[in-house]
Amino acid sequence: MILGHDNIRGIQWLGGELRLLDQRFLPETETYFAAKNVADVQHAIGDMVVRGAPAIGITAAYGVVLAATACFRKSRSGWKELLKKDLVQLAAARPTAVNLTWALDRMKVCLRKVNGDPDSVLLVEAQAIHQEDIAANRHMGELGAALLGADCGVLTHCNTGSLATGGYGTALGVIRNAWASGQVRDVFADETRPWLQGSRLTAWELVKDQIPVTLIADGAAAHLMAVGRVDWVIVGADRIAANGDIANKIGTYGLAIIARHHGVRFMVVAPLSSVDFDTQQGADIQLEIRPEQELLQLAGKRVAPDGAKGWNPAFDITPAELIDVIVTERGVVREPTAEKLAALAKTNP
Amino acid sequence: MILGHDNIRGIQWLGGELRLLDQRFLPETETYFAAKNVADVQHAIGDMVVRGAPAIGITAAYGVVLAATACFRKSRSGWKELLKKDLVQLAAARPTAVNLTWALDRMKVCLRKVNGDPDSVLLVEAQAIHQEDIAANRHMGELGAALLGADCGVLTHCNTGSLATGGYGTALGVIRNAWASGQVRDVFADETRPWLQGSRLTAWELVKDQIPVTLIADGAAAHLMAVGRVDWVIVGADRIAANGDIANKIGTYGLAIIARHHGVRFMVVAPLSSVDFDTQQGADIQLEIRPEQELLQLAGKRVAPDGAKGWNPAFDITPAELIDVIVTERGVVREPTAEKLAALAKTNP
Repeated sequence: MILGHDNIRGIQWLGGELRLLDQRFLPETETYFAAKNVADVQHAIGDMVVRGAPAIGITAAYGVVLAATACFRKSRSGWKELLKKDLVQLAAARPTAVNLTWALDRMKVCLRKVNGDPDSVLLVEAQAIHQEDIAANRHMGELGAALLGADCGVLTHCNTGSLATGGYGTALGVIRNAWASGQVRDVFADETRPWLQGSRLTAWELVKDQIPVTLIADGAAAHLMAVGRVDWVIVGADRIAANGDIANKIGTYGLAIIARHHGVRFMVVAPLSSVDFDTQQGADIQLEIRPEQELLQLAGKRVAPDGAKGWNPAFDITPAELIDVIVTERGVVREPTAEKLAALAKTNP
Repeated sequence: MILGHDNIRGIQWLGGELRLLDQRFLPETETYFAAKNVADVQHAIGDMVVRGAPAIGITAAYGVVLAATACFRKSRSGWKELLKKDLVQLAAARPTAVNLTWALDRMKVCLRKVNGDPDSVLLVEAQAIHQEDIAANRHMGELGAALLGADCGVLTHCNTGSLATGGYGTALGVIRNAWASGQVRDVFADETRPWLQGSRLTAWELVKDQIPVTLIADGAAAHLMAVGRVDWVIVGADRIAANGDIANKIGTYGLAIIARHHGVRFMVVAPLSSVDFDTQQGADIQLEIRPEQELLQLAGKRVAPDGAKGWNPAFDITPAELIDVIVTERGVVREPTAEKLAALAKTNP
């Protein structure tokens, strides 16, 4: 069984190894990266073979399977001790998405119960995480689409689709659902510099699904709103703080400000695993700064002159007060606050 | 005499032809485009061999010299009639920057006085336009820098330097002046997608002047302001309407909104030739939509999948109420209004 959405299967467990659709080479080349050990998985996350908060969590869960199996082969008595270093390594692969920690914590709970060969038990848990994420996305797709009116223009940022999740997507899942139900007039996608997730990944997914998509430069979003083409901005989140502030792809915060300026509504779609109740507010979230080369080069060629520097934060913080609604698989939170998010977490799934 | 700023001479009149530093190939290659006739000039403007509102105006003025000389060679009696078609062609090269119309109008006034061979008379006028633009930039540099405090972080968008003008620059002229007087802590430049004027041109100019520059993705500007690194956003304008609304490079409007949100001040620097008193407000300015290929390709290679579309407006409108100050060579207008701009135009130069 290979999990995913329609013809997009970004994360595959096959023959005892993890196969990741290499997102660095899309849309030009559909090639798979084979992760055979924990170092491969760490590299795949750190170097963005796979990216997107839920996808990173799922990948790390499969990484634990690979790591535990290898440790168990080395020492049948001491493998759990050996594994600790691997878990620390995996957790450090990228700092901002909380789903990584969440998935590792869930695998650790499972680990405590394992006696003997961990392989099959852990694999079942990793696949459960993967499967549950897809189901959560499907449900969020319905909940989010129900909030949109008819004849909507939507704008999304970065990639939050099948490639960023177990399958289907968070923000892009809402757009998929709303498109299928005929609510969407136009789908616009920010190209999302510097990594171009919008042009390379979101557009690729939408074209595969035969959903018309129009790309814009990130700087064109305000003008697009001014000319009345956007009713909703719909984005994902790499981490949601307890108070509803979110960390998401750089550019999200600016979008939220200009959306509010135009009376355009702003929706965040993320599974509960993206909510970090241990982090009180956005300002406490560690934001990854990525290498300046991602900004100063294009297609491997330097575009800026030698001597110019670059500042390349991968994420920014959007405060809760700029968010109209957060959609999770457990339900919808309008005008998010710490109290509302805490109450949501306490409701029955 | 080759006019310009220091070692940057983007527009040169040499041996009876116009030589333009080809901005499409910077910073990698410093090569010149030779414009020998009016079709060359029209192509150079339309295809962005030269860009930037004042630079377009100056180029068009030299284009009139080339055109008139050719027409005079064809017919000593009917050359003014022949020239009319060329003037229409030049005016149509790009629609948004008003400096093009302004420069052509000024050349037409000069034309009316010409009897006999127009070559030297028109060349003197084109060189005067060029020279006056450099002087205006120098003066705006002083006026703008005087508005900045000490220890300023500045952010600029697109390229408004020597390459965009006769030399020295408008917004970049203010930054050059303020840097020289020790007022500037950090210069940040938006990379400015899709054409990357920030990475390719602004950074190139600043590195040449040994002014440290840090590039950011356009989407990172809001986060940069949130972390307190920016005191002033300083931009140029392709056209200023009578009421103080401006048309400028796509992304400017979004910057103005997020600057206001953070209490960051917003300065527009442009010569009086950019003010179009015949256009009442920004909504009346024709905004150029450029080919989607500029967005969907990078370095000649397609980055978006086949089937994805692009929307590529080259400019947007920033309303006067988001502008703290407009700096012209005639003086400074705070919180611009139609009345204040009209009064400025009436003051003595």
